[in-house]
Amino acid sequence: MSKKILIINGPNLNRLGKREPDLYGSSSLNDLEEMLRNEASGFDMELDFFQANVEGAIIDRLHQAESDAAAVIINPGAFTHYSYAIRDAIASIHIPVLEVHISNVHAREEFRSTSVTAPVCAGQISGLGFESYTAGLYYFARRLTNE
Amino acid sequence: MSKKILIINGPNLNRLGKREPDLYGSSSLNDLEEMLRNEASGFDMELDFFQANVEGAIIDRLHQAESDAAAVIINPGAFTHYSYAIRDAIASIHIPVLEVHISNVHAREEFRSTSVTAPVCAGQISGLGFESYTAGLYYFARRLTNE
Amino acid sequence: MSKKILIINGPNLNRLGKREPDLYGSSSLNDLEEMLRNEASGFDMELDFFQANVEGAIIDRLHQAESDAAAVIINPGAFTHYSYAIRDAIASIHIPVLEVHISNVHAREEFRSTSVTAPVCAGQISGLGFESYTAGLYYFARRLTNE
Amino acid sequence: MSKKILIINGPNLNRLGKREPDLYGSSSLNDLEEMLRNEASGFDMELDFFQANVEGAIIDRLHQAESDAAAVIINPGAFTHYSYAIRDAIASIHIPVLEVHISNVHAREEFRSTSVTAPVCAGQISGLGFESYTAGLYYFARRLTNE
Amino acid sequence: MSKKILIINGPNLNRLGKREPDLYGSSSLNDLEEMLRNEASGFDMELDFFQANVEGAIIDRLHQAESDAAAVIINPGAFTHYSYAIRDAIASIHIPVLEVHISNVHAREEFRSTSVTAPVCAGQISGLGFESYTAGLYYFARRLTNE
Amino acid sequence: MSKKILIINGPNLNRLGKREPDLYGSSSLNDLEEMLRNEASGFDMELDFFQANVEGAIIDRLHQAESDAAAVIINPGAFTHYSYAIRDAIASIHIPVLEVHISNVHAREEFRSTSVTAPVCAGQISGLGFESYTAGLYYFARRLTNE
Amino acid sequence: MSKKILIINGPNLNRLGKREPDLYGSSSLNDLEEMLRNEASGFDMELDFFQANVEGAIIDRLHQAESDAAAVIINPGAFTHYSYAIRDAIASIHIPVLEVHISNVHAREEFRSTSVTAPVCAGQISGLGFESYTAGLYYFARRLTNE
Amino acid sequence: MSKKILIINGPNLNRLGKREPDLYGSSSLNDLEEMLRNEASGFDMELDFFQANVEGAIIDRLHQAESDAAAVIINPGAFTHYSYAIRDAIASIHIPVLEVHISNVHAREEFRSTSVTAPVCAGQISGLGFESYTAGLYYFARRLTNE
Amino acid sequence: MSKKILIINGPNLNRLGKREPDLYGSSSLNDLEEMLRNEASGFDMELDFFQANVEGAIIDRLHQAESDAAAVIINPGAFTHYSYAIRDAIASIHIPVLEVHISNVHAREEFRSTSVTAPVCAGQISGLGFESYTAGLYYFARRLTNE
Amino acid sequence: MSKKILIINGPNLNRLGKREPDLYGSSSLNDLEEMLRNEASGFDMELDFFQANVEGAIIDRLHQAESDAAAVIINPGAFTHYSYAIRDAIASIHIPVLEVHISNVHAREEFRSTSVTAPVCAGQISGLGFESYTAGLYYFARRLTNE
Amino acid sequence: MSKKILIINGPNLNRLGKREPDLYGSSSLNDLEEMLRNEASGFDMELDFFQANVEGAIIDRLHQAESDAAAVIINPGAFTHYSYAIRDAIASIHIPVLEVHISNVHAREEFRSTSVTAPVCAGQISGLGFESYTAGLYYFARRLTNE
Amino acid sequence: MSKKILIINGPNLNRLGKREPDLYGSSSLNDLEEMLRNEASGFDMELDFFQANVEGAIIDRLHQAESDAAAVIINPGAFTHYSYAIRDAIASIHIPVLEVHISNVHAREEFRSTSVTAPVCAGQISGLGFESYTAGLYYFARRLTNE
Repeated sequence: MSKKILIINGPNLNRLGKREPDLYGSSSLNDLEEMLRNEASGFDMELDFFQANVEGAIIDRLHQAESDAAAVIINPGAFTHYSYAIRDAIASIHIPVLEVHISNVHAREEFRSTSVTAPVCAGQISGLGFESYTAGLYYFARRLTNE
Repeated sequence: MSKKILIINGPNLNRLGKREPDLYGSSSLNDLEEMLRNEASGFDMELDFFQANVEGAIIDRLHQAESDAAAVIINPGAFTHYSYAIRDAIASIHIPVLEVHISNVHAREEFRSTSVTAPVCAGQISGLGFESYTAGLYYFARRLTNE
Repeated sequence: MSKKILIINGPNLNRLGKREPDLYGSSSLNDLEEMLRNEASGFDMELDFFQANVEGAIIDRLHQAESDAAAVIINPGAFTHYSYAIRDAIASIHIPVLEVHISNVHAREEFRSTSVTAPVCAGQISGLGFESYTAGLYYFARRLTNE
Repeated sequence: MSKKILIINGPNLNRLGKREPDLYGSSSLNDLEEMLRNEASGFDMELDFFQANVEGAIIDRLHQAESDAAAVIINPGAFTHYSYAIRDAIASIHIPVLEVHISNVHAREEFRSTSVTAPVCAGQISGLGFESYTAGLYYFARRLTNE
Repeated sequence: MSKKILIINGPNLNRLGKREPDLYGSSSLNDLEEMLRNEASGFDMELDFFQANVEGAIIDRLHQAESDAAAVIINPGAFTHYSYAIRDAIASIHIPVLEVHISNVHAREEFRSTSVTAPVCAGQISGLGFESYTAGLYYFARRLTNE
Repeated sequence: MSKKILIINGPNLNRLGKREPDLYGSSSLNDLEEMLRNEASGFDMELDFFQANVEGAIIDRLHQAESDAAAVIINPGAFTHYSYAIRDAIASIHIPVLEVHISNVHAREEFRSTSVTAPVCAGQISGLGFESYTAGLYYFARRLTNE
Repeated sequence: MSKKILIINGPNLNRLGKREPDLYGSSSLNDLEEMLRNEASGFDMELDFFQANVEGAIIDRLHQAESDAAAVIINPGAFTHYSYAIRDAIASIHIPVLEVHISNVHAREEFRSTSVTAPVCAGQISGLGFESYTAGLYYFARRLTNE
Repeated sequence: MSKKILIINGPNLNRLGKREPDLYGSSSLNDLEEMLRNEASGFDMELDFFQANVEGAIIDRLHQAESDAAAVIINPGAFTHYSYAIRDAIASIHIPVLEVHISNVHAREEFRSTSVTAPVCAGQISGLGFESYTAGLYYFARRLTNE
Repeated sequence: MSKKILIINGPNLNRLGKREPDLYGSSSLNDLEEMLRNEASGFDMELDFFQANVEGAIIDRLHQAESDAAAVIINPGAFTHYSYAIRDAIASIHIPVLEVHISNVHAREEFRSTSVTAPVCAGQISGLGFESYTAGLYYFARRLTNE
Repeated sequence: MSKKILIINGPNLNRLGKREPDLYGSSSLNDLEEMLRNEASGFDMELDFFQANVEGAIIDRLHQAESDAAAVIINPGAFTHYSYAIRDAIASIHIPVLEVHISNVHAREEFRSTSVTAPVCAGQISGLGFESYTAGLYYFARRLTNE
Repeated sequence: MSKKILIINGPNLNRLGKREPDLYGSSSLNDLEEMLRNEASGFDMELDFFQANVEGAIIDRLHQAESDAAAVIINPGAFTHYSYAIRDAIASIHIPVLEVHISNVHAREEFRSTSVTAPVCAGQISGLGFESYTAGLYYFARRLTNE
Repeated sequence: MSKKILIINGPNLNRLGKREPDLYGSSSLNDLEEMLRNEASGFDMELDFFQANVEGAIIDRLHQAESDAAAVIINPGAFTHYSYAIRDAIASIHIPVLEVHISNVHAREEFRSTSVTAPVCAGQISGLGFESYTAGLYYFARRLTNE
């Protein structure tokens, strides 16, 4: 079975490197994607990338994932805190979805400690910088092998 | 006067039949639309269908409805619980809008019992499965006749 | 199987027509019942009416409904917002119960947007005036036929 | 115009004199009624008394008051804090209703400082012992004269 | 001194055996009463039973208990969670009242973990099935002996 | 013993007649004081009037009242809802203080239904227009006689 | 099968008799244990006692109980209100656990009316003094016999 | 340095003139833009207009503004109250952003008094009708000159 | 018609320049007033200044404004967050009042994001430093001309 | 350097000795001041006393303290719980301010456990009776020496 | 009578000097104890020190204090905010207990402004650094002398 | 530099395999430790294991970790939700601490979605079963190499 992982980045993550660098680091979204591709090849996985600032576009991409990916790693950005529509989209598909965050959401503004999407995900990784994504890849590398 | 009713379905309702079938049944959105068309013809009504996962697209369609529909039946999906923008769109048009839900929103997660859109709708029907929509058609059949 | 529907009206609904006519209209409870009887005959249904201002009397009538009705349409009036006892009565019987409201409870005082009875009902219809009841009849006409 | 005032006492007020005398005094409901009758005669008013522990009975009596009283003084007892049904009954009639309490409800348990009935009454008098009722009589004596 | 215990069962407990049997068991109210009578005879106690769905009827029975019972065991059913009127009735009498629940109220819906009546009772027993009542009998057997 | 009553009016009550006349009527503070003086003379009482917009001035006047008044009728205006300092001043004196309001505070903005001063007053009268004050005079006329 | 019951007393219960005697009585923990041993012998049960002020020690003892007791009666003391760790310990073992309290926790400070452990216990008995424990013994005597 | 100001109008503001005219006036979005252009020319500023009902489109436009505008005046419409994604977009750019509202958001529904975007803006102007925008222009005219 | 604007500064604003300069700048209240007078002369307006730390003095000045000013710009300082008395004073006069703040109140402590005075003002400007006042002058210059 | 300490007492503290003596003791404000002067002389400190019931007067005195005192000990009385204006005054001066309370504010009404002034003070001492002030003197005696 | 004071330091206070030095200073627990011993000798007092990270060990030491100390100064560290068990331990002994904190708990995270132990202590001193303890010694030196 | 990682498991994790296996799996703590040791050897890391049910023992072990570990992976079990003392212990050491959970804490009881320890950790991984720990090892393997 093919191990294709879809990486979804939500609103403002296209600003990585330019956006509050003390919180999100100085590398760009391209840097992140390249780093992940390198890491994935070590795990013998293929990656697909998607970034959108439009909530509905993320919903559409999640729906499609059921037919073109084995698992999803999603950083919903600020949608984490209110998009019940993305939550429903995740709940409506039958492949595992892992929520990741670059910064430690529990150590910032009050509203960031609530995730409306996490309850329907397999799990959540936060605070490890870009390594939140690589730890997700590592996890799926092991989980998809075991299945 | 023509009795054209616009049926708007919000996010993830394009997944009907595939999405949590114990909550939403196993029929597809196409099945729903066909069933409603049949029922509408009995009421001598014409239906127009619109489904979108993008909040702004629903807002646009609501604005347009003022000039091409006599009434709207809307299932805002998860937007029900937080889209004040759709609420404002409904409040900004001068035709009656009825909110419907397939499942009983009061019997599920806490957040689903709050509707930010219902206060500006004519009314709300929930929990009757696809019949939530047909009951809405029945209502408008009678109301538009009486006007 | 006989399609007898019990219509329960809760506290102050005997005041219909005299009570805040801008919210509830100027027709009386008798007018409502007559209108419903007419509509029901078109659906080939029989109706039974019950109105009470005493919470316990409504509980008793719900218990009895299991043996003399196929379904219940209930407008619990103000009991909607605090009568956990009526909620338990509804949960204790094995026929479908539909909650209806004449006015749009979501567009009035804060306390009216909470229903403690809706979670154990099949569904809820609100805001359609007397048509909240007829839409309920329409629903049961279709549902009981399909069973 | 006749100045008949209906005095409604809610649940447990038939226990006056026996119930927590430090809060409610040691006089009985009969004592209260006699005192009020004396006072009313001085104001050239007629009084009608009603006490019930059943919420629905109080609702019925309020409905009837519209045709047999010029005003109502009601001590809803514990119903003050949750009976939205009595609130609706008061709102449904067109004579002035005054809420009274023997004890100072603001100086007791937290829940007693909320009144769900006061918003639809003309006003509220609390904490004056039996004089909460006589002050109410005094008020209506003056108000009904002025009308 | 005579040891007559009054057993009060609140709303919907007349539905025991028919009502949600996984929560309340499959025995009827008659079964419960018979079991309690047997147990009481072993404790040399006499029992009096009262069941009502009307809140005011329970208040009346509590008032009367002061003159015809040594103690009360009450299962207020859903009134537990909002009847401040029953709370006041319990506080107004001078015999010990024990609150019992068949199911573990703390393990169910959020609203069931609040009791407005317990603060004025001697104590509360919940979750032991019908044995919540027998444990109450055992308690009064010992307490009334010691007095 | 002399029956001198101090009438304290809080912030903005010097605007009576000019301020939101639908809520407060069109009579001025002078009109109110003259009406009260007339009424008081019928009760054989003497009145002293004090109005201030400064919280601390009201506190000072309350302190002084212990030596020059038998009782106080206070309309704390908006201070009702947050002045714990006036609350402490009332609690610090040993003569009865009655809180009055012209409008029905329970029927207006949410914040007006909370009184931080009422718990330390003898009682509260609200909603009777200027008659809230006269009812207070009537009360003290009777209470001070009885002492 | 042997009927060995473990009685766990939480923090500060070693102070019984010395600690707030109006709430907890003047008998010591030894007195309580002796009284329970007497009562248990009448029920043909064996008791094991454990008291600790250290949360982790109670957790250890609960774990061990699975192999050396048929049931547990626990008075978690103040841990009742916040020890999710003890809650998890109770949920992790497969013998019935009954929560007891000497005083009526519902009639004291607000925080005492919340139990985080009760939802995973079989039931809860509170307010009966030392008889809360004996009523628990009575319950297990009957329950363990019936199994 | 060029003083180009970007004016962003959020959801439903394309309905100006048609939408609740008592709240928003009877002039259209075109009227607003023309008025602002006139005013801006007096300040020697250039304006760029953007209106969207799609949250993500507003995010995209904000990102782009960093390279084509000196400052932004944004009326986020209903997104003000929940779009943490727009909040993050504003925080991610390094030009000043001013939030404006036509109506007084503090004098309407409760939810409108919370702004999730204001904390990351330079400031907020509300309630001045179209003059909320012109006051913003006036501000930037002075601020950008001073820099 | 004369365009006299009253500028009211609330508590601690006499400390401008000395008080937390990173929040409020290093210019004094005199500097602010001089800057405003200059700006006002350009708008052909006359200004009147008032600063007080006493809540009641601000109330008095607001009352007086009705007869000696065409409009008011008020920075209520910390009174913004709790002075319902100033709110009532604003509501009691019939000239427009504009609330201004030097700092962005939405970006500071939680309590500063609530304004009890804003709901009865014409609007609110915050976060623009001293320009919050000049923008207010600009607004009134235009508004009073148009009237 | 001179060690002059300003002692500010807020509203109702001029009533010491007369006001609720079980909470505040039976000594007067004069007694307190004399005791403090005695104690201060032992610490080689000079004291200045100020008492006011007017919030704004306390603000003025705090402002002045910067030029005539080395430190402030303030008992804000009831202002502790709501005077954000006094909080801002304390934050606006550059000498240390210590908050003291005679009674244990944590052991009284709920509202007294919140201090809006403490977050900007150096620290807080409560519950030690008049010794709360002397402990404050002791603290400043040591702190000012060390500087 | 001997004046032995027990000083209890709670969790993580053994890390003093190493732990967040900007909040807690750079001196160690040994330094603190030596400083206190010096100060105590000036007051003719003897000190006993106890530090523990285990909640139950603190409870045990409090129980023992009744027989070997005249008073207790306790810094409960983080237990301040949730240990109802330590609260009960303090309430169970009959010697005065004073709560102290090195940092100003009101000026830090929200959760630190709540103390569950303070309501049963004699008083609380916070924010004075190590001088919070010495001020406590000073207090007990005076109080124990006066007894 | 040596890469020794300390793995701390909190309360009830010694019950792994026996405790709610649908939530936590059927492998024991030994199984987990063996699996982690295997994985760690692949990363060229050394592991140290610690499990305790006593909060204070975990605090002690965290303190010690500063001198004998390069990083900590901690599963605080139920302490996650209330142990501010463990939070302070984590904040007091200068090596990175990662919080892990076996189950998805966001998909269980409400109280489990709050972590009081996460804000002072480097990050948090939850819901991945035992792989939450291996993902943590993977993270530290990469992070410690990069340093």
